[in-house]
Amino acid sequence: MDKIAVDAMGGDFAPLEIVKGAVLAVRDFHVPVVLVGDKEQIVKVLKDNHADQEPLIEICHASQVIGMGEHPGMAFRKKKDASVSVGAKLVKNGECGALVAPGSTGAAVTAGLLGMGRVDGIERPAILTPIPNRKDGYTFLIDSGASAQPKPETLLQNALMGYVYAKKVWHIENPRIGLLNIGEESTKGSPVVTEAYEWLSGQKVVPFAGNAEGRDIMSGEFDVIVTDGFTGNVVLKFGEGAASLFSALLKKSVEKGGLRAKLGAFLLKPALKKYLVKRLDYAEYGGAPLMGIKGGLIICHGASQARAIRNAIHMAKDFCEARVVDVIAEAVVQIEKEAGRLKED
Amino acid sequence: MDKIAVDAMGGDFAPLEIVKGAVLAVRDFHVPVVLVGDKEQIVKVLKDNHADQEPLIEICHASQVIGMGEHPGMAFRKKKDASVSVGAKLVKNGECGALVAPGSTGAAVTAGLLGMGRVDGIERPAILTPIPNRKDGYTFLIDSGASAQPKPETLLQNALMGYVYAKKVWHIENPRIGLLNIGEESTKGSPVVTEAYEWLSGQKVVPFAGNAEGRDIMSGEFDVIVTDGFTGNVVLKFGEGAASLFSALLKKSVEKGGLRAKLGAFLLKPALKKYLVKRLDYAEYGGAPLMGIKGGLIICHGASQARAIRNAIHMAKDFCEARVVDVIAEAVVQIEKEAGRLKED
Repeated sequence: MDKIAVDAMGGDFAPLEIVKGAVLAVRDFHVPVVLVGDKEQIVKVLKDNHADQEPLIEICHASQVIGMGEHPGMAFRKKKDASVSVGAKLVKNGECGALVAPGSTGAAVTAGLLGMGRVDGIERPAILTPIPNRKDGYTFLIDSGASAQPKPETLLQNALMGYVYAKKVWHIENPRIGLLNIGEESTKGSPVVTEAYEWLSGQKVVPFAGNAEGRDIMSGEFDVIVTDGFTGNVVLKFGEGAASLFSALLKKSVEKGGLRAKLGAFLLKPALKKYLVKRLDYAEYGGAPLMGIKGGLIICHGASQARAIRNAIHMAKDFCEARVVDVIAEAVVQIEKEAGRLKED
Repeated sequence: MDKIAVDAMGGDFAPLEIVKGAVLAVRDFHVPVVLVGDKEQIVKVLKDNHADQEPLIEICHASQVIGMGEHPGMAFRKKKDASVSVGAKLVKNGECGALVAPGSTGAAVTAGLLGMGRVDGIERPAILTPIPNRKDGYTFLIDSGASAQPKPETLLQNALMGYVYAKKVWHIENPRIGLLNIGEESTKGSPVVTEAYEWLSGQKVVPFAGNAEGRDIMSGEFDVIVTDGFTGNVVLKFGEGAASLFSALLKKSVEKGGLRAKLGAFLLKPALKKYLVKRLDYAEYGGAPLMGIKGGLIICHGASQARAIRNAIHMAKDFCEARVVDVIAEAVVQIEKEAGRLKED
């Protein structure tokens, strides 16, 4: 089984929650983990959690950390011994199959792109984020923020990578792939999107179910929703903002609703936690894979705690076992042939 | 006072709810209204609601209706006597100051664009949608779906129109105008957005507060968020989808949570309705103005009922009283001069 590298120094609760999450993953899934970061601090947390003798846990020392506020590209070049860079190197040289990276998304994308390199033929890596949908499952939004330059080729490749992920990692037999647009008709939308629509319709590598609209990101009508990293990032952050407004209004209702509302909230709380809060919690799946690079890289929220890290490590394990990188490398040759043919038409 | 034309045949609940909404508006705000549509049906609803003798209500007969499923452009050309077109004509020829249009957004935009015409100098009209924010107010998202072709010029003009609306109609003294992007730094984002950032920073007509991110659409940190109609439309529909997922999960929690959860929900419900549901209900403000055309046009949700129509008519009244069209026409001359200067740089 591939080892999973974990950047133990990334995110708001490093190294404590990251290391705790790794210990959970090792015990629950028997997956070998390499904790990357300050050895002394990591050992201390392991000891505190009675896991310093755990045979499936290794430590790889790294003396630097890239912070949330730093410019990812510059920090990557300057801090050669940053934990996220060292983790990417472990994947690059084959010691690990994937890296789990909490903390700065920019730093993780840079480490993946420059530290591991792109899959041949893939123009731009893309972040795939699972979004909870109304059918009790997840819809994968790709790209949710790696590349802000929308081009038809990029959208075609995003569709391909989303398809591979849905099919190989989540074992969805016939994934429905939709192109995010502002209407169902093929002629709707910006020039880039209408061109991507034509390309997607004209090829046979990825099954294409047509245009999807904003509301379909959560409707469950699609398994994969393809978009550019600008729109995807806006959607994702807007979703966070909407959840936070919703939760603020919920709190306000309880506060202003008097004793009756307070009692109601007290009674309703366990069910809300179980069926609503949990369903919307990113810790349930752990992170978002960066697709299109030569290796696994699961980007985790900066606020990730142990359970999110545990689940991200599971995601990384699945990613490796499904041989996603190889499958993408094979499929991209096919789809680029078709794209070339479509371009000539 | 300007008369307000109302497309009485538009939307899912026409003419009943539209006419009832107009009656409410006339009585609450003493605004003169012209109901456009099938005279016989309108008179019947007025009689049923004891409003057929209302002196502030006129009827303008129109024999056709543009349905939700029709292609807006084609339908507009073919159905010369469609209620939405006749309503636009009333504004064009000066009989009314604004049109309230429930039903197909595409048909309303087409009627505004072709039936009323653009303000000189405005390249593309834009929909301005009020989004509830965390500071108990609204943030105006412009463009939320009129034009899918993102250009720096368009974003600059959207900023201008959003500014005029916030300042003149909502009387916000120093509106904070943000450019929707994927990071706070000026160099972030797609080429169109970085260019728009430079232009916005380089001019003095519109106060520019810098980049805003997806989460700022609801954070209340900005009064106006400027974007292209593609991103704006996706955001808006995603918001609807998120609200509907949230409400589905809330229902599920109550259903699956047993007697305790049901009792809790019963107790909490009045407070939720008052502080959460009402706050997120578009009926509270009624509709979204189409900015940049020669006249007022308030686009309403297809599912609008009486209260939404009443409030949209109030919005139309405010729009007329603030002389939005004239102010935009004056300001666009200024900003185009600055844009020309910036282009030459």
